[in-house]
Amino acid sequence: MKRVLVTGASGFIGRWTLAPLVARGFEVHAVDVRRPSSSPAGVVWHDGDLLAPGGAARAIAEVGPTHLLHLAWYAAHRLFWSSPENLRWVSASLDLVRAFRDAGGERAVLAGTCAEYDAAHGWCSERTTPLAPSTLYGASKDALRRTVEAYASQQSMSWAWGRVFLLHGPDEHPDRLLPAVVGSMLRGEPTRCSHGRQIRDFLHVADVGAAFASLLDTPVQGPVNIASGEPRALREIVTAAAQVIGTPQLVRFGDVVVPASEPPLLVADVRRLREEVGFEPAWSFEAGVADTVAWWRTATGT
Amino acid sequence: MKRVLVTGASGFIGRWTLAPLVARGFEVHAVDVRRPSSSPAGVVWHDGDLLAPGGAARAIAEVGPTHLLHLAWYAAHRLFWSSPENLRWVSASLDLVRAFRDAGGERAVLAGTCAEYDAAHGWCSERTTPLAPSTLYGASKDALRRTVEAYASQQSMSWAWGRVFLLHGPDEHPDRLLPAVVGSMLRGEPTRCSHGRQIRDFLHVADVGAAFASLLDTPVQGPVNIASGEPRALREIVTAAAQVIGTPQLVRFGDVVVPASEPPLLVADVRRLREEVGFEPAWSFEAGVADTVAWWRTATGT
Repeated sequence: MKRVLVTGASGFIGRWTLAPLVARGFEVHAVDVRRPSSSPAGVVWHDGDLLAPGGAARAIAEVGPTHLLHLAWYAAHRLFWSSPENLRWVSASLDLVRAFRDAGGERAVLAGTCAEYDAAHGWCSERTTPLAPSTLYGASKDALRRTVEAYASQQSMSWAWGRVFLLHGPDEHPDRLLPAVVGSMLRGEPTRCSHGRQIRDFLHVADVGAAFASLLDTPVQGPVNIASGEPRALREIVTAAAQVIGTPQLVRFGDVVVPASEPPLLVADVRRLREEVGFEPAWSFEAGVADTVAWWRTATGT
Repeated sequence: MKRVLVTGASGFIGRWTLAPLVARGFEVHAVDVRRPSSSPAGVVWHDGDLLAPGGAARAIAEVGPTHLLHLAWYAAHRLFWSSPENLRWVSASLDLVRAFRDAGGERAVLAGTCAEYDAAHGWCSERTTPLAPSTLYGASKDALRRTVEAYASQQSMSWAWGRVFLLHGPDEHPDRLLPAVVGSMLRGEPTRCSHGRQIRDFLHVADVGAAFASLLDTPVQGPVNIASGEPRALREIVTAAAQVIGTPQLVRFGDVVVPASEPPLLVADVRRLREEVGFEPAWSFEAGVADTVAWWRTATGT
């Protein structure tokens, strides 16, 4: 029997892991500080605050999981990069992993970030790219991974670390790139953008969730990039959204200055995800953008 | 006014920081799970368990320190290398540093370890030697340092990290190298040793304590090796102890096989400690060994 505890289960990524986990035969237990309005059949929800004293131990004791998928973290838009809340989540995550293992847990998968990599390298490969986080968020995830790696090795515990790159999809924070651009165009307003030549990797959030479910269901160890492997310029995603909406004339590339700290290139080597985990995205780039636009049309009644 | 909270204040190192801190004009507040039988005048003791929920916040709230000297950690002989307790101390240390800063704390110094370095390098310099801890203890300290470094940078908080090498002195655990060797010779027993050609750096624990007090009382940032800068073969320290006791004939070099994992060389670059912190050890190697032997003679009535 495979029984998984998913933390942050009602979050932007978490909610998309549940159906794929059920489909893979996991008994799925979800924990979060809030419950979603709907959720796939078969998922058992638990109330729990991992930041509360003893919260991690209680969640583990309630479920007795064989598998752990730990996605919960502080995620307030923009603020998460430098908030002291990152330190609380390092602590809470270590408490959680230790409680999981103490209770007989077998395999843990945790969410990492492309912000662990040295952004000067652009090309991010789990095996060769140096790690040099430049933010408190990246440093905290990096430190958590180092500790969990040493702990897992000492405990002979199976573990993996899914490094999330850029993602988009329904219900993303409205100030983030695609929702902001789509929102502006749906309102018929001019959409001010940077030159848009920064190369990134976007994956639809449903595929991010499915990739985490796949990763959990393999014995693959260590860091694995969670990304599409299709480098795209930011202007491509903006243009794709504008074409779906039919408002290419509203887009103003070059109106916003790119901060010097923003790397020109940040793309993922996805060979581990494709070849070792065996995961293929279900959403094409174009279909994913169209889906996101459709969701915002419905959400905003436009 | 400089008001310092010292954690692990009754520990092997902690107790030696108190008088130097008082001498430097600090108002000294000491916290530990147990109090020592005696302590320098002027030190205010607080009961507190940093591993208890809210323990760190309570200790900070009680004292309102401008300075933090965080030495507390799990230290059970041999077990500390691989114990899950290391994860609890990462969490507790992050809670402590965050509570300290939230309460207006200005400068924090924490205890690191030579076990953060890649032991394959032998020569350990803060600026150039790669970090590659091979134990859960080393990885946990390394992860804590990375997180505190990013947090301090984000908060513009002054911080330093004292990397402790080998040390010796009164009241060390009786199973550790020098106490074991001295104890055996004081009982008149043959003293079985390895070949003793491993090169290490030993500092008398009173100097380790004084070095931490010095480091706290400077604006020096980041990692600083806490060591003598005098590389010595293990056989030298054994021979020195045997000469003080007058039992060189009891020493059996070569009777114990050196584990393959034990590096031949582990020595410290002490230029930051000497030149930037301005610290000079008070104890010579020979006087330090003689002091340790004298303490064990008294303690064991031999």
